[in-house]
Amino acid sequence: MNRITETVIEADPKLPVIRMTREFEATPEQLLRAHTDPALFARWVGPDALTTRIEEWDARTGGSWRYTSVHDGTEYRFHGCFHEVRADRIVQTFTYEGDPDGVALETLWFEDLGDGRTRLRAQSLVDSFEGRDAWLRSGMEVGVDEGYAKLDRMLADGSV
Amino acid sequence: MNRITETVIEADPKLPVIRMTREFEATPEQLLRAHTDPALFARWVGPDALTTRIEEWDARTGGSWRYTSVHDGTEYRFHGCFHEVRADRIVQTFTYEGDPDGVALETLWFEDLGDGRTRLRAQSLVDSFEGRDAWLRSGMEVGVDEGYAKLDRMLADGSV
Repeated sequence: MNRITETVIEADPKLPVIRMTREFEATPEQLLRAHTDPALFARWVGPDALTTRIEEWDARTGGSWRYTSVHDGTEYRFHGCFHEVRADRIVQTFTYEGDPDGVALETLWFEDLGDGRTRLRAQSLVDSFEGRDAWLRSGMEVGVDEGYAKLDRMLADGSV
Repeated sequence: MNRITETVIEADPKLPVIRMTREFEATPEQLLRAHTDPALFARWVGPDALTTRIEEWDARTGGSWRYTSVHDGTEYRFHGCFHEVRADRIVQTFTYEGDPDGVALETLWFEDLGDGRTRLRAQSLVDSFEGRDAWLRSGMEVGVDEGYAKLDRMLADGSV
């Protein structure tokens, strides 16, 4: 069996967009739950060294979210709104409060591959190539890889 | 006196962005109110031939909105969420439900020019140049011009 569990992260050459693709041993319903249930989401999001505390969470079309991630006593805050939450797609905004004027429009698609597998495609759109490239250079792939590995373990142990 | 009241609409050559600039005989507070008070907003938004009915409206950071515009009995529906509402800036998402997968990230800035005048700058970011250019070719400038002319009249008669 050929199982792709690495995350492919790509910068679009013509659009200020980052795209990520990752396959999971999960149904689309499970991946949706992992992204909308606040207790589940807090357990897997971000690098291993961070602990995440949900401050606000209303994962429905027109709702909003806010969470704080803590590393060695330092707090990193994030917030956004849910433009749309539906079975095959989430569209939301994202701001890291350390860069309060920066806003990304994020889209997640859950593609059913059958056999209990789902491809997650994610797109993050910003309004400058400089901002996009700075984000890519920030080491964000560590948080993405470690976060999805935690989600893999939660799927394997029946947590989701 | 040199008063610019036309709306300048520009397509960015390198980003999938539309930018608009318009000056008003208004304070930033008045322009913010015209964009956040639902009864005021419904009176000026869009072309003269449309009547707008607000369905949902919570103009604060993390809130959401939904309205229906009616022309000759045909209804056009729009919705989005407010990523941020602050004195000098609104960031929100925007979907026309006739194109339900399309989403724009809109930013409005209110720049105080002094003397009771304010420059409104607006930016609409989407994830394709084709989508952006189709929107520019749709005749959207008629709705923009007629809407802002209505807002000028409301500012002049003390409605805002």
